[in-house]
Amino acid sequence: MKATRRYPFSASHRLHSPQLSDEQNREIFGKCNNPFGHGHNYILEVTVQGPVDAGTGLVVNGQSLDGLVRDEVLERYGHRNLNEDIAAFKDVPPTTENLTTEIRRGLLAKWPQEFPRLDRIRIHETDRNTFEEGAF
Amino acid sequence: MKATRRYPFSASHRLHSPQLSDEQNREIFGKCNNPFGHGHNYILEVTVQGPVDAGTGLVVNGQSLDGLVRDEVLERYGHRNLNEDIAAFKDVPPTTENLTTEIRRGLLAKWPQEFPRLDRIRIHETDRNTFEEGAF
Amino acid sequence: MKATRRYPFSASHRLHSPQLSDEQNREIFGKCNNPFGHGHNYILEVTVQGPVDAGTGLVVNGQSLDGLVRDEVLERYGHRNLNEDIAAFKDVPPTTENLTTEIRRGLLAKWPQEFPRLDRIRIHETDRNTFEEGAF
Amino acid sequence: MKATRRYPFSASHRLHSPQLSDEQNREIFGKCNNPFGHGHNYILEVTVQGPVDAGTGLVVNGQSLDGLVRDEVLERYGHRNLNEDIAAFKDVPPTTENLTTEIRRGLLAKWPQEFPRLDRIRIHETDRNTFEEGAF
Amino acid sequence: MKATRRYPFSASHRLHSPQLSDEQNREIFGKCNNPFGHGHNYILEVTVQGPVDAGTGLVVNGQSLDGLVRDEVLERYGHRNLNEDIAAFKDVPPTTENLTTEIRRGLLAKWPQEFPRLDRIRIHETDRNTFEEGAF
Amino acid sequence: MKATRRYPFSASHRLHSPQLSDEQNREIFGKCNNPFGHGHNYILEVTVQGPVDAGTGLVVNGQSLDGLVRDEVLERYGHRNLNEDIAAFKDVPPTTENLTTEIRRGLLAKWPQEFPRLDRIRIHETDRNTFEEGAF
Repeated sequence: MKATRRYPFSASHRLHSPQLSDEQNREIFGKCNNPFGHGHNYILEVTVQGPVDAGTGLVVNGQSLDGLVRDEVLERYGHRNLNEDIAAFKDVPPTTENLTTEIRRGLLAKWPQEFPRLDRIRIHETDRNTFEEGAF
Repeated sequence: MKATRRYPFSASHRLHSPQLSDEQNREIFGKCNNPFGHGHNYILEVTVQGPVDAGTGLVVNGQSLDGLVRDEVLERYGHRNLNEDIAAFKDVPPTTENLTTEIRRGLLAKWPQEFPRLDRIRIHETDRNTFEEGAF
Repeated sequence: MKATRRYPFSASHRLHSPQLSDEQNREIFGKCNNPFGHGHNYILEVTVQGPVDAGTGLVVNGQSLDGLVRDEVLERYGHRNLNEDIAAFKDVPPTTENLTTEIRRGLLAKWPQEFPRLDRIRIHETDRNTFEEGAF
Repeated sequence: MKATRRYPFSASHRLHSPQLSDEQNREIFGKCNNPFGHGHNYILEVTVQGPVDAGTGLVVNGQSLDGLVRDEVLERYGHRNLNEDIAAFKDVPPTTENLTTEIRRGLLAKWPQEFPRLDRIRIHETDRNTFEEGAF
Repeated sequence: MKATRRYPFSASHRLHSPQLSDEQNREIFGKCNNPFGHGHNYILEVTVQGPVDAGTGLVVNGQSLDGLVRDEVLERYGHRNLNEDIAAFKDVPPTTENLTTEIRRGLLAKWPQEFPRLDRIRIHETDRNTFEEGAF
Repeated sequence: MKATRRYPFSASHRLHSPQLSDEQNREIFGKCNNPFGHGHNYILEVTVQGPVDAGTGLVVNGQSLDGLVRDEVLERYGHRNLNEDIAAFKDVPPTTENLTTEIRRGLLAKWPQEFPRLDRIRIHETDRNTFEEGAF
């Protein structure tokens, strides 16, 4: 059984890579390279997979998963500027690809042993584009 | 080719496990353990997988699939109290995990031989949490 | 300026009027009259109207409005059985029309003097039907 | 007849009023006052009202309205930091209330005489809160 | 109290006015003037306004309203080509403005005396544009 | 990492197979066989899978993918009648299954070597049914 929970959070970012020239940055990222940044209502989806507990009928205790996501994601990334507030994006462009990798890394670092395995995470940047990382 | 059809239905439930003490039930299920229950607008997604018929251009006849889902799911679970009206939940908590297992079991029991294989079902309990069971 | 905030909550109900015969209840309410009830993911929309504060740039402090709705609506109606848990529906059918009237009455009874006026409330019962009451 | 068209755009903002102390700003705006800001996928709705043209069957030429909104809203506000990039928000907090007022002012300043009247605009900041200004 | 019910239906149309030259048609309607037409998943919203019945707790019997809309709208317009199948659009372009007028006219022509008044109808052509006609 | 982008387009179709009798066509396709056709707001989802570029932080350049989809899908199928305007559907019924196959074939025929692999495409015909083809 897979269970997915969704968590919205708002943050801002500027797409700019220190490995590229200013001209290359403008060409590749377009308006997303505007100097002062812009933002999104991101939606994070966390999917876990495991057996259903015979006593509780649950794959995972929702409150426990919510607590982990609150501590490791919502408190750190919510209402933040990804470039300024998140150490991982000091030298790495905060594309939603890199944000997906970083959030998954953070969740796995604190993943409780008693939780079912993390199947994948998805981040919707807008209702027109989505990123997903898992064991595939 | 995979084809997915979606079916909304409204039902009520109370999360309570006879295998747990009242205190454990309150701790694990929180407000979902309130004595008189609450409810949801569930959305069932049924995904089938198979070849596209060369004559009709269809993976599955939509009306036939709708008929099966109407008989085996919507008529049984729609506008019902899962705890009181569904025999399977007399001694088992009607979590959406268990509801997913039970609905999939019921569909497979009546699955016509000529249908493409059932790839998976998904149930959205709210727009923030979803459960999925398939051959994975 | 009008400002609207949305609040989802899940509850169950059975449509049954003590003023009608059992046969009339079945005829008028159909499956919604099933004895053990069913439920919905309701979405409440609260719209206020007033001037924008020159200092804060706000029509209403969102946290204050959220606090009122939490106390008067979400705590009372969320994860509840409207027929069993809400005194107002002991002798009155908990249609979403009556729920709208009752929730609006409860909000107005505690409406802080410093709040902008309550323009209207809306309740979505499903994504196919909605009820609205205001000063129109 | 009323016609409404919707336009999504992404921008960032920090809620901070120069008329308030730092402590008041933190108290009123909470996390929205975080120093480096955050952002949203805003959705602008523009509603016009007028007669249906007998020849074309249109209330307004959609391409013309789209052109005005592109020039006056999407090019100016899309992929921008409202505090840094928009002159109107140098000394005024870029709450969505103030953004609504400013966008409506900008549209009305360039509103073509041949257009039907602007009935109202709405801005959705998230799927949980919306602001609306019109002739009411 | 206002009550709104939503009804999706799929239809096709070609925007072309016999009162305009071919060149004007192409200029005004763009790709919507393509000779063989295109189509939409329209969503009709019907809003009625009236008192809540003290016995039933309803503004309108949903099944009765559904029946009227089924007969007067869904059976006539659903899975149809508006230009070819609907007499009213033989000489009039089937813009969603004109469709709104025509559907409202048809509903009012058969509106039962015991129904609450029709407040307005809305038609969503896509999730980006909507048309509305009422007593305003 | 998987990245998905969504593209809406409107088109019309009539479900009718030359390999079937008129009676069979009516029986299998129901109202979708109505002679003059109907239409939908389709949503195409394109999912690619590949490594994240260390310099840009991207799986795929969104503008490049958008360009391919614009040329191979939106320009060809948008605002079109699938039966009349698309050669592939002269003798094959334009079911959304066949449309999915045809759009995937067209994308793969022009798929740039430097793009990450095409994981799958999905087409939503309405919000109640979806088709998906990939390497599964």
